[in-house]
Amino acid sequence: MAKVKKASESLTIMTNIVLPNETNSLRNLFGGELLAKMDRCASISAARHCERRVVTASVNHVSFNHPIPEGGVVVLESKVSRAFSTSMEVYVDVWLDDPINQKKIHTNEGIYTFVAVDEFNRPIPIPDMIPETEEEILRHAAAIRRKELSLILSGRMKPLDSVELKKLFQEPEDVKESKKDKK
Amino acid sequence: MAKVKKASESLTIMTNIVLPNETNSLRNLFGGELLAKMDRCASISAARHCERRVVTASVNHVSFNHPIPEGGVVVLESKVSRAFSTSMEVYVDVWLDDPINQKKIHTNEGIYTFVAVDEFNRPIPIPDMIPETEEEILRHAAAIRRKELSLILSGRMKPLDSVELKKLFQEPEDVKESKKDKK
Amino acid sequence: MAKVKKASESLTIMTNIVLPNETNSLRNLFGGELLAKMDRCASISAARHCERRVVTASVNHVSFNHPIPEGGVVVLESKVSRAFSTSMEVYVDVWLDDPINQKKIHTNEGIYTFVAVDEFNRPIPIPDMIPETEEEILRHAAAIRRKELSLILSGRMKPLDSVELKKLFQEPEDVKESKKDKK
Amino acid sequence: MAKVKKASESLTIMTNIVLPNETNSLRNLFGGELLAKMDRCASISAARHCERRVVTASVNHVSFNHPIPEGGVVVLESKVSRAFSTSMEVYVDVWLDDPINQKKIHTNEGIYTFVAVDEFNRPIPIPDMIPETEEEILRHAAAIRRKELSLILSGRMKPLDSVELKKLFQEPEDVKESKKDKK
Amino acid sequence: MAKVKKASESLTIMTNIVLPNETNSLRNLFGGELLAKMDRCASISAARHCERRVVTASVNHVSFNHPIPEGGVVVLESKVSRAFSTSMEVYVDVWLDDPINQKKIHTNEGIYTFVAVDEFNRPIPIPDMIPETEEEILRHAAAIRRKELSLILSGRMKPLDSVELKKLFQEPEDVKESKKDKK
Amino acid sequence: MAKVKKASESLTIMTNIVLPNETNSLRNLFGGELLAKMDRCASISAARHCERRVVTASVNHVSFNHPIPEGGVVVLESKVSRAFSTSMEVYVDVWLDDPINQKKIHTNEGIYTFVAVDEFNRPIPIPDMIPETEEEILRHAAAIRRKELSLILSGRMKPLDSVELKKLFQEPEDVKESKKDKK
Repeated sequence: MAKVKKASESLTIMTNIVLPNETNSLRNLFGGELLAKMDRCASISAARHCERRVVTASVNHVSFNHPIPEGGVVVLESKVSRAFSTSMEVYVDVWLDDPINQKKIHTNEGIYTFVAVDEFNRPIPIPDMIPETEEEILRHAAAIRRKELSLILSGRMKPLDSVELKKLFQEPEDVKESKKDKK
Repeated sequence: MAKVKKASESLTIMTNIVLPNETNSLRNLFGGELLAKMDRCASISAARHCERRVVTASVNHVSFNHPIPEGGVVVLESKVSRAFSTSMEVYVDVWLDDPINQKKIHTNEGIYTFVAVDEFNRPIPIPDMIPETEEEILRHAAAIRRKELSLILSGRMKPLDSVELKKLFQEPEDVKESKKDKK
Repeated sequence: MAKVKKASESLTIMTNIVLPNETNSLRNLFGGELLAKMDRCASISAARHCERRVVTASVNHVSFNHPIPEGGVVVLESKVSRAFSTSMEVYVDVWLDDPINQKKIHTNEGIYTFVAVDEFNRPIPIPDMIPETEEEILRHAAAIRRKELSLILSGRMKPLDSVELKKLFQEPEDVKESKKDKK
Repeated sequence: MAKVKKASESLTIMTNIVLPNETNSLRNLFGGELLAKMDRCASISAARHCERRVVTASVNHVSFNHPIPEGGVVVLESKVSRAFSTSMEVYVDVWLDDPINQKKIHTNEGIYTFVAVDEFNRPIPIPDMIPETEEEILRHAAAIRRKELSLILSGRMKPLDSVELKKLFQEPEDVKESKKDKK
Repeated sequence: MAKVKKASESLTIMTNIVLPNETNSLRNLFGGELLAKMDRCASISAARHCERRVVTASVNHVSFNHPIPEGGVVVLESKVSRAFSTSMEVYVDVWLDDPINQKKIHTNEGIYTFVAVDEFNRPIPIPDMIPETEEEILRHAAAIRRKELSLILSGRMKPLDSVELKKLFQEPEDVKESKKDKK
Repeated sequence: MAKVKKASESLTIMTNIVLPNETNSLRNLFGGELLAKMDRCASISAARHCERRVVTASVNHVSFNHPIPEGGVVVLESKVSRAFSTSMEVYVDVWLDDPINQKKIHTNEGIYTFVAVDEFNRPIPIPDMIPETEEEILRHAAAIRRKELSLILSGRMKPLDSVELKKLFQEPEDVKESKKDKK
């Protein structure tokens, strides 16, 4: 098993046509069906990165920006965005691809966390991940903040113990100083 | 349409047996299938609260704590946890219910956001929601922080502009003072 | 295993949205799909009552009174209506629940028989069932007539050997007497 | 539209392989899935008989005698067993057909009632049905008793108003006389 | 196991209603879904002929002549058209059967090859097949040409080594002679 | 609409996990399910090439070389291999991709023909296709022979009227001469 892998090595592309069974009464792809597709796509990326069996640990955030109509061509692309010791964050982008009008709309993005497990379902170490493109570097950097957030939301970390996340919510020292002076 | 509704009025119970088609190669319920079920259950709660057609806006967080085996009885219970002007947060709890051994294990919880829409798919106002039980009150209070978080993650709010969330990451004034003195 | 259980202990609620795949060409829930859902819901009630693995023995009667449209919210509620030595009758009620117009229509009721089996698929004894509400008491009383009917239809009982069912078809002695007198 | 049709004109054969998705945790065909298949097969027979759109009115009785394993070849055969003014009874036989060992086991039979409807979903008259084989004649004769039974169970007929069914439960006059004499 | 079987002994009839989930955005049966149904139907014919487990070896040709609409009754009929040493060709005919207008349209035909395998997935000998009807005899004769074609397309036979197929592409000797004379 | 397009412009990648529902009793992907996936993948390639709605005209050949197990990652890649006036041939390659052992097995290839249609389902002209890689050029050249073959098999062309195909089955003039001399 490689010790370090690139983000691009876990790239997974899942193209498909939206079937009637996957749509709601407005004839658009059901939110839940899309979540299931994203989970499957992301799990393949995770397995490709760590060369191990993986299980979904959590869904961190999925946004629904644009409906995907029945019969539409939906393209999912996922890549590992950051590897931690035994878990990894996977980013999934979803596009509605209209081959007739040659348009491609970014409809969703989702962030999933997977854990690599051995045959007894116990977490095992995974290779580190090296981002290369600008987007990969940005998502890699943000992943540590999302991990802290996840730990806080599940009660396993106190907000004040966070390192990266705390920074976002704290004003620079000099700003605080000046505010204090005004009191 | 009522102006205010109780959390219990949106309670939705979805019991079912895990079918072979919904399982992964370990014969456990696929993460993605569970996400789809949770979305459907939550969307009924949302519609019951606002008496309108609803669409999924985002999945805020879903944890996967315990595998649910094929043939197992899975019970989903969802309730609106907080109503905002045109959107509402729905909390879904999932249990694996073993009728033979009379055990019930809490396997997952998930938090979804739905928007009520009119026939032209435009957001419309919804009734407020009054929590009653201790758990409903806790979840109602935390929902505002999750909403701020969601706005921050989607770039529509700056971390320092948050009200509730910021509090979590800021040390009390007196603690900061004493730290400063030590410098 | 309890020796006696209440009807309410086997209550199972299965709420769901009618998916396009489950509808016929009139865009209403297929009769057969509803039968499958009722069977699954009823089998959970049966397992909850007897705390054993159960198999469907027969469907005694299912009526279809009202179509359930695609996208509709369908609610199934099942409870054991009577326990016999190794089998039990389960009653399933189905409603179409319209959260937008706040209407609830009783669309179907179905009566299923399940048998509790051990690991070798052999029937095993089950707890008795005590009805409590007025409806539970009525259904419990009628169940014995349905059981006799099932035995007669399958050729395992002669009509004249029935106890409860025969009563329904026989005129009171005095009426018969008076009729005879008139001859 | 023919005024009278034979039973054989509505014969419908539905052969298929039991897919993993249709099985329970014992890897046998789910009772509910079989009910759905039987409903679909019977509805084609009904449409073939009356040359009209049909809807399921009720399931009168379905027995489950033998499990059907995953991967097994299941054969359904349905025929209209009796036509009434606007409804018809359809009989469905189910076999497990093992092509490797050249065995064929009769696993189930089911009795469904369908109604022919016009484009406004209103019941419309249907052709009469003439049974030919011995089995067809027996089932045709029994159908009238099942119809009375169905009317009684749904509260639309009083047991004592039945014609055919009542006969089954009444002892011949001379037997009753002799019993009375013994008192 | 019989040494020789008739084509009619492998006849398999698969009638079904086209479900919404099986249709494309024009509300017609998806080509791929029909291919799957044909494969399942043909595999039962193959198993009935050789009384062994079978696996699909290739799809030789499937034509799509007429769309099959959602809700339509589709009838598949398959029979073994020729048996070779360990493989057999199966012919599948598909009809759209409209019970309301009493019309039956031949929409597709497909030719599949199956191999009989033992428990270790190794090919095993199968009985020969005797065609009886005019159509069976024609298809039996053409099957040898299709087999040669399949061997050529997969690179396992050189075109000039074919026996039956080559004949189709070669002009009679006398025609060639006369052509040559004209040079 | 472009007048000429490259093969690579129609490349479609469809990665997915084999679900239990898609497997036969040997727990391998059903031949028919794979055919359905290939059809969907190929139809997207066809639509991408001609920027029009497309329908499957025929399946020319699909080979099944290697089983694909449940839970396996299956990757389909399709590209237009040749464009004719209103129809196009699409080549689909299928791999079993094992991310854990880092192996990739070529399990199948299939050749489909699609027709571009207008809103009245009438065939319409499509852009030409320019092959670039060695494999694209080989497949492009072979496509004309397959088209002739398809016309012959469907009775729309006589073998002796074929241009490319006939060549394969005819010995060079000098060989024939020498053979003749030996007589």
